[in-house]
Amino acid sequence: MDTNCIFCRIAAGEIPSTKIYENDKVLAFLDISPMERGHTLIVPRRHWATMADLPSGDPETEAVMSEWFRVARLVCKAAIKAFGGGANLLQCNGPAAGQTVPHLHLHVIPRPGTVETQPSFVSGARAYSSDVEREATAELLRRYLR
Amino acid sequence: MDTNCIFCRIAAGEIPSTKIYENDKVLAFLDISPMERGHTLIVPRRHWATMADLPSGDPETEAVMSEWFRVARLVCKAAIKAFGGGANLLQCNGPAAGQTVPHLHLHVIPRPGTVETQPSFVSGARAYSSDVEREATAELLRRYLR
Repeated sequence: MDTNCIFCRIAAGEIPSTKIYENDKVLAFLDISPMERGHTLIVPRRHWATMADLPSGDPETEAVMSEWFRVARLVCKAAIKAFGGGANLLQCNGPAAGQTVPHLHLHVIPRPGTVETQPSFVSGARAYSSDVEREATAELLRRYLR
Repeated sequence: MDTNCIFCRIAAGEIPSTKIYENDKVLAFLDISPMERGHTLIVPRRHWATMADLPSGDPETEAVMSEWFRVARLVCKAAIKAFGGGANLLQCNGPAAGQTVPHLHLHVIPRPGTVETQPSFVSGARAYSSDVEREATAELLRRYLR
């Protein structure tokens, strides 16, 4: 754990988050500056800054990576069922890629609707109007993950 | 194989592509409308339209998914080494998420540079100036994948 890392501290329970799913390897929680309603971050509990920092061929790392992607896929499927339409998976490595927290994270961004469009990736574009709306959104995702 | 699907036909070798990597489960090739130099698509050989179409708990599907993500991570790491800066991973499900080819694909988009920015996701924003440039880009990625 990196004590200066906000996602390490969220994973350790030191900073509160609206959790969608967690197990011993990964944690999924709502983004606090959502691009869209239900925007979720999936993080490995272990700290790596970017893909470039992952060791090659280490079985333990590979197991975390498999689990990371598996949970991202489940959240993605849940988001499509919960909100309709589609969803994006996004992962950013480095400041030029838009990474603002240097701890590996996968974004799942719901995209309600069925019209072909160029999706927008602006943080905070869709803030929750209340704690109630945020919690109801989280509960909808959790329900479709079960 | 879906004979109407362009990515199935690329995977079968019926339509040419600039390949970066391939094995029995997945194929990585340069996007023909790159957002950035070295923009690569990683596709499972098997046809699924979106994440929502993946069966749950099927070991064979899970093996393909693990390999899909593993190769995407390797290409991402290679892109960061080859071009410097960072890289994005992007995956689109459904028209509202910007999916234009309904066969699962992960985009790896190199982001040269180290300045914090809002990355752009416009297809074709960085076309290759020649076949020579495209092939040299592919060869650079292949070298860092070895």
